Amino acid sequence: MGRLTNNRLKSVFKKYSKEERRLVSSIKMIVGTKPFNLKPYQIAVQHTSVAKSVKKGFKESNERLEYLGDAVLGLVVAEYLFKKFPFKDEGFLTELRSRIVSRDSLNHVARTIGIPQIVRFDKKRKTPNSHKSLYGNALEALVGAVYVDKGFNTSRKFIVQKLLKPHYDLEEIINTTKNYKSKLIEWTQKNSKTPNFEHIQTIDKGHFKEFIIQIQIDDEPIAKGHGLSKKKAEQDAAREACTILEIE
Amino acid sequence: MGRLTNNRLKSVFKKYSKEERRLVSSIKMIVGTKPFNLKPYQIAVQHTSVAKSVKKGFKESNERLEYLGDAVLGLVVAEYLFKKFPFKDEGFLTELRSRIVSRDSLNHVARTIGIPQIVRFDKKRKTPNSHKSLYGNALEALVGAVYVDKGFNTSRKFIVQKLLKPHYDLEEIINTTKNYKSKLIEWTQKNSKTPNFEHIQTIDKGHFKEFIIQIQIDDEPIAKGHGLSKKKAEQDAAREACTILEIE
Repeated sequence: MGRLTNNRLKSVFKKYSKEERRLVSSIKMIVGTKPFNLKPYQIAVQHTSVAKSVKKGFKESNERLEYLGDAVLGLVVAEYLFKKFPFKDEGFLTELRSRIVSRDSLNHVARTIGIPQIVRFDKKRKTPNSHKSLYGNALEALVGAVYVDKGFNTSRKFIVQKLLKPHYDLEEIINTTKNYKSKLIEWTQKNSKTPNFEHIQTIDKGHFKEFIIQIQIDDEPIAKGHGLSKKKAEQDAAREACTILEIE
Repeated sequence: MGRLTNNRLKSVFKKYSKEERRLVSSIKMIVGTKPFNLKPYQIAVQHTSVAKSVKKGFKESNERLEYLGDAVLGLVVAEYLFKKFPFKDEGFLTELRSRIVSRDSLNHVARTIGIPQIVRFDKKRKTPNSHKSLYGNALEALVGAVYVDKGFNTSRKFIVQKLLKPHYDLEEIINTTKNYKSKLIEWTQKNSKTPNFEHIQTIDKGHFKEFIIQIQIDDEPIAKGHGLSKKKAEQDAAREACTILEIE
């Protein structure tokens, strides 16, 4: 099986142009395995700004692969945390996952593993920061390409071995995760506003209760949250408020 | 291989109680294959209201499996649509996926395939609608259980063959997807409010431009959106506004 695959690779390899061979080497470095089919990787490293129209109104950019790669990353990280933290609840896991796959984290990892060297985009009239998420998006698209080319298990291996383990310090992420309530309160202090967490409803569900909390800022209702404790409902409402107010 | 598995199943099967055998049959009906390990399925059908504490502050309810199953569903549906619509952009795919995995859809499918018959929850003092999403959540947890028990390929087969193909009419979903802008406008008319879509910024990115649209309702800024066309930016802003205003 191994031999057959190698032969197949070699026979394909010969047909590659110099530029393609360079991409194959980069993929091998970044992903850990050589492509079977180079096509999805070529699309993954192609930003919308250089994508060609293949059909009326449809450009072959990396955005579809980014959509797919985002879902692959989501599952692999979800499973990794699920197994690593058998006694943590889904709120903890969800929050940790969202920090791992955040734009900032992905951009950082993408730069570290060499995505900038393989992404093609239109450099004309471009300021260095005009595409903050370009590299992180391309990394998601690359994950999508690995999935299309080699399936779920190879994608999982790539994500866990080449991205998660070497580039994330989970303990540090957990320790530095500020809670949303304190983030929101900090923000209101900085902006001389007054936050108010009001418990507006309790829904009785038999053996347990669900609490609804509403946040007002300077008497204006901003967000609602719910949870099985008041504390959880406050966090939920504060998270919503942080999103709405674009508090990082 | 098949024989070994059958023997393994039989030897395990003998140890099951009557109640467990009933669950095994139901899983076989719903998922299409018998469990190797019944444990994750038992957790999946156990709502928080009947979950036991296995550790201080930690209940073995189905919420962790729901978190995992949500990610499995997300990837399987993402891939299914990715392959089915090779010339549709990621905006279309994302929107269609979110309709497929929405609370309403999942609750409906869960009821149809018999999830209410296997979920265990506390029925005391419960009104019929007090747990609108209980069945959809349990379905996600069941997907998580299949994933834990049998891995990705079996989960995908279950989702595609037993959920997606028989219970979703994609054409109908596509045709009835109202756009967010018209949803928002309908809502403002019903509530005697005035919406205003304002194009507040254009970001020049070389060969293409990104548009930023802000929605005000009765002169109050509600949401912003961005996109590669004004129309897309409006949709993006309107989607955000619908979320904030809780417009279904």
